[in-house]
Amino acid sequence: MNQEITLALDAMGGAQAPEMVLRGAEMALRRHPGLHFLVFGKENALLPLLARLPRLAEAVEVHHTDETVLDDDKPSVALRSGRQSSMRLAIDAVAEGLADGVVSAGNTGALMAMAKFALKTLPGIDRPAIASFFPTRRGESVMLDLGANVECDAENLVQFAVLGDAFARSVLGLVEPTVGLLNVGSEDQKGNDAVRAAGVRLRSALSPIRFYGFIEGDDIPAGTVDVVVTDGFTGNVAVKTAEGTAKLFTEFMSGAFEHSLSARIGYLFARNALGKLRMRLDPRRYNGAVFLGLRGIAVKSHGSTDALGFAHAVGVALDMKVNDFLDKIRVDLGRFEAAGAAPQPAAM
Amino acid sequence: MNQEITLALDAMGGAQAPEMVLRGAEMALRRHPGLHFLVFGKENALLPLLARLPRLAEAVEVHHTDETVLDDDKPSVALRSGRQSSMRLAIDAVAEGLADGVVSAGNTGALMAMAKFALKTLPGIDRPAIASFFPTRRGESVMLDLGANVECDAENLVQFAVLGDAFARSVLGLVEPTVGLLNVGSEDQKGNDAVRAAGVRLRSALSPIRFYGFIEGDDIPAGTVDVVVTDGFTGNVAVKTAEGTAKLFTEFMSGAFEHSLSARIGYLFARNALGKLRMRLDPRRYNGAVFLGLRGIAVKSHGSTDALGFAHAVGVALDMKVNDFLDKIRVDLGRFEAAGAAPQPAAM
Repeated sequence: MNQEITLALDAMGGAQAPEMVLRGAEMALRRHPGLHFLVFGKENALLPLLARLPRLAEAVEVHHTDETVLDDDKPSVALRSGRQSSMRLAIDAVAEGLADGVVSAGNTGALMAMAKFALKTLPGIDRPAIASFFPTRRGESVMLDLGANVECDAENLVQFAVLGDAFARSVLGLVEPTVGLLNVGSEDQKGNDAVRAAGVRLRSALSPIRFYGFIEGDDIPAGTVDVVVTDGFTGNVAVKTAEGTAKLFTEFMSGAFEHSLSARIGYLFARNALGKLRMRLDPRRYNGAVFLGLRGIAVKSHGSTDALGFAHAVGVALDMKVNDFLDKIRVDLGRFEAAGAAPQPAAM
Repeated sequence: MNQEITLALDAMGGAQAPEMVLRGAEMALRRHPGLHFLVFGKENALLPLLARLPRLAEAVEVHHTDETVLDDDKPSVALRSGRQSSMRLAIDAVAEGLADGVVSAGNTGALMAMAKFALKTLPGIDRPAIASFFPTRRGESVMLDLGANVECDAENLVQFAVLGDAFARSVLGLVEPTVGLLNVGSEDQKGNDAVRAAGVRLRSALSPIRFYGFIEGDDIPAGTVDVVVTDGFTGNVAVKTAEGTAKLFTEFMSGAFEHSLSARIGYLFARNALGKLRMRLDPRRYNGAVFLGLRGIAVKSHGSTDALGFAHAVGVALDMKVNDFLDKIRVDLGRFEAAGAAPQPAAM
């Protein structure tokens, strides 16, 4: 990393904040020594922690605020009355050009509302979406929207396809990612109106996106496409169902190894291999949901994550900056518009 | 089983039909000796198979037809021109009171369209739903709709809750099953209009259903509730995502045990325990999606299943009959109506 990059951190968001935020920032710093942090939160909680993290302390600027957004604050309330909150001040630092991106493990709805308000959406984008990557049979894929928009029309879905395509190219480093639209079957007539109409537009010869077509739920873990596009209701349910199923399987496996003396011995022999698998599938490695469609980089960490998970979320924000995501998405939106399939609200 | 029960089988539906249908029927017969079958399909394919299954041959009446519904037939076309198909004749046998239920591994959309047309919906039910059970941390749960209705209003969701409740009580044998509505969060204001409005009605003190509230995707494998209610789009995606994730995990595990000599030795020791787990999670054990809301018992087997899977689907139809599902659901719909929360189309 040759650039100097500054990230704004909401130190007060997340169940284990602020300690996991600072420890996570330190882990990220060890991996990427050029990083700087603007850290927003309560000084009397942060300074004693920083005293024990001397290396991080040198790369950090603490901005004191007493206000925090709570997990059960409504987004509209947080937006109105949380202007001095650690979350909002961190976002404002990006809006004012003082930081290259913001990372928070706080209230998702509030973070989205504030980020949308303070950073604004990109030209041609009506609504930002939440995206994340996840492990598949083939490697990694991206899915969006994961919950920002519970109801989506065809236009929103087409815009998500453009956003996901740009994200996969800049952060996963794919040259021509395949994009699939999540549906209940692969035939053209399947699904609801929004999905069918979005399919028609993405299938158009003019679209610069490599559209695979409709995919089904089992194509998500199979990695059939690089980018899975869906509405925020379905995407939220799908990603949580996959996480829950993975967790259940892990528990069932652990249970099986406790089943008998023979199984316990088997575990001892297989421990290394199973440990590697566990590491590969560690949800902390996939922590960091990205708000796409904004004029700035905003990453949401899981609220219950630990320092390692938060470090990964910081890594995602860093990757987006290093790979010039915002420039790439602007070019993409231009290509899309030039191709005559412009994501314009009035075009449907 | 004291009753004599007759099931109508579509012998021509499914990738491995008709052999897996007959072999599956024979397996089911071994478990439940009182069963009789009306088998619909091509005589010249069925009779040679039955000659090798003498026990089944005694319990079977073959009804010849040359016509079959193909997997890619549109439901509307199948409904119009498939009146002499093996699928339709099997359904008609139920409608005419000659059989207690029908089982087919053929085209889902065609089966639903024909079953709805020939069997009719129950009073108070606008649209039938597809339900299935699946393994969870706590045992087994039921989910519906799995794809019959890609767009649902609040009224449909409330009706699905009543259907799922009756199914869980009669087939899973639960006294007071808990019912959850799938959403993107647990708070009252979360979700789309249909889900929120259905939540209000199910939460009403008058509703006889034990409503848990909103649940999220990870609650499905966790078994938080006995009955998961959702629209057919979300339900279809969720169940396929869970199946795909389970399959991916199984592959990853197999891969891990191939990883090194030590891991291979570990597998030998743990083989028994892992085999038991595999048996418990065998998707064939959960084969048999039920069409709920009809005036007859109709079960859809996975198209790609084998004889064991088909035997399980036959078992589901049998369970519904033995446990008087149709009587119970009529009582339930009455209770619901009496409670003033009647599932009537005009009530919203």
